Amino acid sequence: MTPRINFVTLGVADVGRARAFYERLGLKASSASNPQVAFFDINGVVLGLFGYASLAEDAGLEAGEPPAFRGMSLAWNAASEAEADAIMAQAETAGARIVKPAQKVFWGGYSGYFADPDGHLWEVAYNPYFPFDAMGRLVLP
Amino acid sequence: MTPRINFVTLGVADVGRARAFYERLGLKASSASNPQVAFFDINGVVLGLFGYASLAEDAGLEAGEPPAFRGMSLAWNAASEAEADAIMAQAETAGARIVKPAQKVFWGGYSGYFADPDGHLWEVAYNPYFPFDAMGRLVLP
Repeated sequence: MTPRINFVTLGVADVGRARAFYERLGLKASSASNPQVAFFDINGVVLGLFGYASLAEDAGLEAGEPPAFRGMSLAWNAASEAEADAIMAQAETAGARIVKPAQKVFWGGYSGYFADPDGHLWEVAYNPYFPFDAMGRLVLP
Repeated sequence: MTPRINFVTLGVADVGRARAFYERLGLKASSASNPQVAFFDINGVVLGLFGYASLAEDAGLEAGEPPAFRGMSLAWNAASEAEADAIMAQAETAGARIVKPAQKVFWGGYSGYFADPDGHLWEVAYNPYFPFDAMGRLVLP
């Protein structure tokens, strides 16, 4: 059995607020969503939004206070620097906080970061070394 | 532009140790990997492993100490309860810590959690309501 990422679940303070943010960003919630949980199909992965404390409790962990950095980032890759800029602007309009404006970076690409209303970190990147396939997925060497 | 999850990057204490864990779990690292970063194609999403402090620094955030709960989980869905048990056993053999043994849960499915060597939380779940497509992706209503 080879690992798959079927779900990325983000713990949020208010499912309705988080859902509205991702809807403004252009996603459509599944009809299986309810006030306690929201599901989005995002290029073949389910993005789940669930209460921060409830998610911790589900795993039997102490929730604690959400730290600014959580050891993880998601990335939404763009096809060009201009598209990365447009995505950052779209996210800001939807209510994201710009953590780092998109800029040329040491590895030869172009990248910025935004945080969703719960502080989950998204990188927006143009990576000239990893092309896209027809489905918008990156092709690794 | 509709959001995509192209990358899930996990901050790790030791890229070589984390890479070896995910290789034991059955993934093959891209040839673009190097001692500072590892890339795996995992059903169309890139799983990236990068230094915990380096990832924080890339976003301009303070790394802090990795908390036990980070407000997020990944899920690897199984086609049956038996497959979920087998995945949990496979993860434990590869060096994961079992956070919650797989068991029947309130929403009608079957789920457990393991943590990778850096504490990143993976749920292993059988969800009878969300079937798989031919590519092993969940189909939402």
